Amino acid sequence: MSRHKVIYDTDPGVDDAMALVFQALHPDIELLGLTSVFGNATIATTTRNARFLAGRFAAGVPVAQGAAAPLKRTAPEPLAWIHGDNGLGNIALDTTDEAPLDARPAHRFIIDTVRAHPGEVTLLAVGPLTNLALALADDPQIATLVKQVVIMGGAFGTDGVLGNVTPAAEANILADPHAADIVFGAAWPVAIVGLDVTQPTIMSREYLASLRERGGAAGQFVWEVSRHYEAFHEQSAQLAGIYVHDSSAVAYVLAPHLYTTRSGPVRVLTDGIAVGQTIQKPSTMPVPAPAWDSRPDCKVCIGVDVPGMLALYERTICGTL
Amino acid sequence: MSRHKVIYDTDPGVDDAMALVFQALHPDIELLGLTSVFGNATIATTTRNARFLAGRFAAGVPVAQGAAAPLKRTAPEPLAWIHGDNGLGNIALDTTDEAPLDARPAHRFIIDTVRAHPGEVTLLAVGPLTNLALALADDPQIATLVKQVVIMGGAFGTDGVLGNVTPAAEANILADPHAADIVFGAAWPVAIVGLDVTQPTIMSREYLASLRERGGAAGQFVWEVSRHYEAFHEQSAQLAGIYVHDSSAVAYVLAPHLYTTRSGPVRVLTDGIAVGQTIQKPSTMPVPAPAWDSRPDCKVCIGVDVPGMLALYERTICGTL
Repeated sequence: MSRHKVIYDTDPGVDDAMALVFQALHPDIELLGLTSVFGNATIATTTRNARFLAGRFAAGVPVAQGAAAPLKRTAPEPLAWIHGDNGLGNIALDTTDEAPLDARPAHRFIIDTVRAHPGEVTLLAVGPLTNLALALADDPQIATLVKQVVIMGGAFGTDGVLGNVTPAAEANILADPHAADIVFGAAWPVAIVGLDVTQPTIMSREYLASLRERGGAAGQFVWEVSRHYEAFHEQSAQLAGIYVHDSSAVAYVLAPHLYTTRSGPVRVLTDGIAVGQTIQKPSTMPVPAPAWDSRPDCKVCIGVDVPGMLALYERTICGTL
Repeated sequence: MSRHKVIYDTDPGVDDAMALVFQALHPDIELLGLTSVFGNATIATTTRNARFLAGRFAAGVPVAQGAAAPLKRTAPEPLAWIHGDNGLGNIALDTTDEAPLDARPAHRFIIDTVRAHPGEVTLLAVGPLTNLALALADDPQIATLVKQVVIMGGAFGTDGVLGNVTPAAEANILADPHAADIVFGAAWPVAIVGLDVTQPTIMSREYLASLRERGGAAGQFVWEVSRHYEAFHEQSAQLAGIYVHDSSAVAYVLAPHLYTTRSGPVRVLTDGIAVGQTIQKPSTMPVPAPAWDSRPDCKVCIGVDVPGMLALYERTICGTL
């Protein structure tokens, strides 16, 4: 098969970093670039982290800096209690070999790269969707030129929850609900990998320790970068391990058969007490719903083969594919 | 055990009728009255049907007429394609023995009856929640005087759906979202029996036919009243049977052990594209959520012992308890 040409739109972020290593080491992914966005930390921090990660694990892959704030809201506070003060679990960062910064803003980098590879680019977005919305605003035709858009974000209730930062909203979508509603409404193929499948997918401490033992420098890095993040999960969710958010979106790109999806248009609530909620109208629903019916179908992940996903990540990190 | 003293707040409605028969025949329920409300049909129709049902199956139980429209919205159109033009599946209605109409409006009947039996009354509400909200407005203290409030309404996503009349809303809650938000926020014990458990509970055609054969006049009635309703399910959901909405709330009163519940405050969206959505903040959720945190916990049903529920209904109708 041809490799997946991926632009990784990211706000590193511990799980963003774990997902970057996953992509960098998997032979079926060709990283065309990283685009940074505010989210887990400020844009300065996430851009620095993206350059560090690309330099260390994906030499030669460029980084373009993206949005510092959402389209219509104020930027959220950095999630330091989750991702550490430096966004990468407070590990020491040697930026000697950091990737160069592309001169273009992220959304222009996305547009140019999509146009350079028409029909071939996968946009893999695991932060607030501001850069993708800005790219659509600048050049709406790219919607017809990307291969697919795979999003980590949102929640649809099938895991029993509708959100993680509010009772109704997941962090990436809440951080820029207007952008998300634009991205889900554009005429490109969208797959949404939300809490419904990322929270049931848990890397236990033993699993992470095994990566450390067997995964060489990458495994050692995954272990180290996840210590602060794991402590957060233990404290907030009494979990001896971590939810697998961003790497689940990578797994969807590589192995969509691991996921059960439901088709139908998706809207995002942009105000009120449930701001940031994602709501799908399943295509099997017989009633009219004007706010949904004019929009294209998205695929929403509602089920996951957890052992299959975890094995794919492990084999990639440990080089045993 | 002492019997459950129940006020049945209802908008008959086919499944309302099936749930009335369930209550009338179960020895652990003492019906104190029926209160009608608009919803499945106009208030004139639902009141007529409530009087017919009480007269036929619960002799001596009074009926009080309730709200004709929601607190702040216009009344929805009657759901004739679901419940038939007469609200009871277009069966012939002999109103010779219909129950007398109490002189009081439903909310006053509720207040007076609760005050006559402090701490003893279960409010079992299976339509729009307007009457209960009006009762609270007139006499807020009744919240401390009822035993419990059991609601059929809402949807929380655990069955994969958030609504049946819109992608985000269930019919009873959408019909008066302001009333529902008031009822879920009052200081009485509320249990919510929503689509999460009522749609997985299905009475097949064979099950209903068995009631007809073995359930005497009640079983024959349940069969007849459900013919139009079953055809609607077949046409809209390709279902060879019917969802068990209102009778599930009765089952919760009689046998709460059949249901798995989750505790936490519940809000109802009162405007926007998701108007009528019910959103719980699970009590285990660690983040603050100001719109929820000042409100009392409700119990939301998220799991059901389907065979247990169906057996309870069958044994009640067939007199084999």
